[in-house]
Amino acid sequence: MRNISLKAIIKKNVYIGNNVTIEDDVYIDSGSIIRDNVIIKKGSFIGANSIIGEYLGDFFKGNNKEHICIIGKNSVIRSGAIIYGDVIIEDNFQSGHRITIREGSRIGKNVRIGTNSDIQHQSVIGNYVSIHSGVFVGEETIIEDFVWLFPHVVITNDPTPPSNKISPVRIKRFASIAAGSIILPGVIIGENSLVGAGSVVTKNVTEGMAVVGNPAKEKCLADKIKNKFTGKPAYPWMYNFHRGMPWEKAGFEEWIKKS
Amino acid sequence: MRNISLKAIIKKNVYIGNNVTIEDDVYIDSGSIIRDNVIIKKGSFIGANSIIGEYLGDFFKGNNKEHICIIGKNSVIRSGAIIYGDVIIEDNFQSGHRITIREGSRIGKNVRIGTNSDIQHQSVIGNYVSIHSGVFVGEETIIEDFVWLFPHVVITNDPTPPSNKISPVRIKRFASIAAGSIILPGVIIGENSLVGAGSVVTKNVTEGMAVVGNPAKEKCLADKIKNKFTGKPAYPWMYNFHRGMPWEKAGFEEWIKKS
Amino acid sequence: MRNISLKAIIKKNVYIGNNVTIEDDVYIDSGSIIRDNVIIKKGSFIGANSIIGEYLGDFFKGNNKEHICIIGKNSVIRSGAIIYGDVIIEDNFQSGHRITIREGSRIGKNVRIGTNSDIQHQSVIGNYVSIHSGVFVGEETIIEDFVWLFPHVVITNDPTPPSNKISPVRIKRFASIAAGSIILPGVIIGENSLVGAGSVVTKNVTEGMAVVGNPAKEKCLADKIKNKFTGKPAYPWMYNFHRGMPWEKAGFEEWIKKS
Repeated sequence: MRNISLKAIIKKNVYIGNNVTIEDDVYIDSGSIIRDNVIIKKGSFIGANSIIGEYLGDFFKGNNKEHICIIGKNSVIRSGAIIYGDVIIEDNFQSGHRITIREGSRIGKNVRIGTNSDIQHQSVIGNYVSIHSGVFVGEETIIEDFVWLFPHVVITNDPTPPSNKISPVRIKRFASIAAGSIILPGVIIGENSLVGAGSVVTKNVTEGMAVVGNPAKEKCLADKIKNKFTGKPAYPWMYNFHRGMPWEKAGFEEWIKKS
Repeated sequence: MRNISLKAIIKKNVYIGNNVTIEDDVYIDSGSIIRDNVIIKKGSFIGANSIIGEYLGDFFKGNNKEHICIIGKNSVIRSGAIIYGDVIIEDNFQSGHRITIREGSRIGKNVRIGTNSDIQHQSVIGNYVSIHSGVFVGEETIIEDFVWLFPHVVITNDPTPPSNKISPVRIKRFASIAAGSIILPGVIIGENSLVGAGSVVTKNVTEGMAVVGNPAKEKCLADKIKNKFTGKPAYPWMYNFHRGMPWEKAGFEEWIKKS
Repeated sequence: MRNISLKAIIKKNVYIGNNVTIEDDVYIDSGSIIRDNVIIKKGSFIGANSIIGEYLGDFFKGNNKEHICIIGKNSVIRSGAIIYGDVIIEDNFQSGHRITIREGSRIGKNVRIGTNSDIQHQSVIGNYVSIHSGVFVGEETIIEDFVWLFPHVVITNDPTPPSNKISPVRIKRFASIAAGSIILPGVIIGENSLVGAGSVVTKNVTEGMAVVGNPAKEKCLADKIKNKFTGKPAYPWMYNFHRGMPWEKAGFEEWIKKS
């Protein structure tokens, strides 16, 4: 059974499986594969050569179960994406090219994931999270709302690799992790904190603190860091950065009062 | 000449070249390209949009030679893979998505290579090696049996880049290299050793030693590190980790006695 | 309107848009998409499943403008590339697989970009630049002629992430940045300098200097570093390395006199 809107645009060489729903104004570019049990909501774009609802391990054991994959409304998934079955992505998702999202992951609304980033299974990503290019998010990571991960950040989860038990990282809301940083297993990154570029974070980061280095050490309170163009405090970043955020019109101060 | 089993499943828009053998129960998903001189053995899966037996440089010089590519039995190569001609992969290979394996490389049996990993030419990878996501393995690297490379590890080979002579890395059996580590040219990583996450390894690592930092320094004997869940020594890891290993049933102690 | 040479080879399942020029002896491999307003010059190869002239953000706002993409003569773009509209690449370009080049970027002649590398928008890359695998080049980066970036180098641009103003990196000619290094926003890497593997470069690097570490510190003049095979100074590298360079026949000394 398929439920494909007459108002959807399906380009050439697209393969669509069974039990698929494609709502109005969806655009699926050429060469894409929509596997079984996929729902693509109104107004979303699926870039060329993407695979949505990708097979889990049970397929290869000849025991393919039903794994639902839901893509929220008004999402833009650029070409080459691979999104597994048993993934739910909420509305207004935006991605670069060739992202990978493994089974069991839950992605909030207004999330952005950059080119080549790889989200491992059972990850939980909150609303308005921005993940840049080439990021690796290990299995079972928890990323709260409004977190930023910059290019090539690596989030690990196995304290004694290889082992059978993992110890996931948790990144609390409004935290910002700069490019190329590595977060070690079990680490909790506090709210409003900043991890400087190229850091290796081996222990918890206190709320509002800036850390840097290998191993990362406390440098100062994040709110002591100034924007060199404006001379004003750069953190908490929400007072300065509005693009795409829910406080885009009112400003953060007004918005947080009402939330 | 092609030798394609009637018991193979070939999906839509698959292109198959000359002098190709596809054995029983092989599954080739849509959009894949099997170039000339490829052998895919019994029971293997080739994911969508993969290229097997990819052109070497001679193709672009108008001088395309015969380069054989062999995929061993019961392998699972997930979508978007690019595996060059003149590559031999033994049985039970498993890969994530969009791996690249360059010409001249030899891959042992029961090897796993994760999403986006890039194995450069003339690499030699032993049996039961596990390479996670986003790893870079430089040209001519030698990786012995039962080695682990975790996400985003980079293995270099040029001591004075750019130069004409390379100095490959050798990683000895049972070694474990944690996420984001960089191994410098010519370094030998000893048997049973552990490289901590985010390390930059500039000199040889002694057998059984744990090193960490930039530059990496000796921290302790690996067998002093405990698994925080069980309280027992975490290394050598083979006494604790069995999944997918040949000692899965008997345990490492019994297995090593018989090997 | 399309202007496709009868001497071009176009393989199966290639989609070609409007206002496209494909010159003599171009080869476009199967599954590729050539969007509108693309010019592919004489003798170039476009690998399978590539997208040339990819959509910019305006496409998704229903306001698709004309963005020209030009691929220079005798280029080899290997499979899976995504090159945006509003990109100009000069002659003799060579790439690995799955590269990404974003809109507004300008790429000189005889440039090489390795597998999985991601060049962000508005980057300027000079002539004879060699970028290896898995490199990230942030928005507005300036890379002068004859620069080398080795595997997994990350070039950042936002001093207080996330912010609205960026501070691009500039890498001066003949500089060499070894594997896994991270260059912080606004940093200027001097001519003939060397950044050692795994460095995090937080401030400008003086001309001819070698730096290493996290944070990177001056180690010595680059010309004090010897090639261990020959015993001679390894830098400036141009005296030792000629392959693919314009001084390949005459040697650097002769060539630089005439330039």
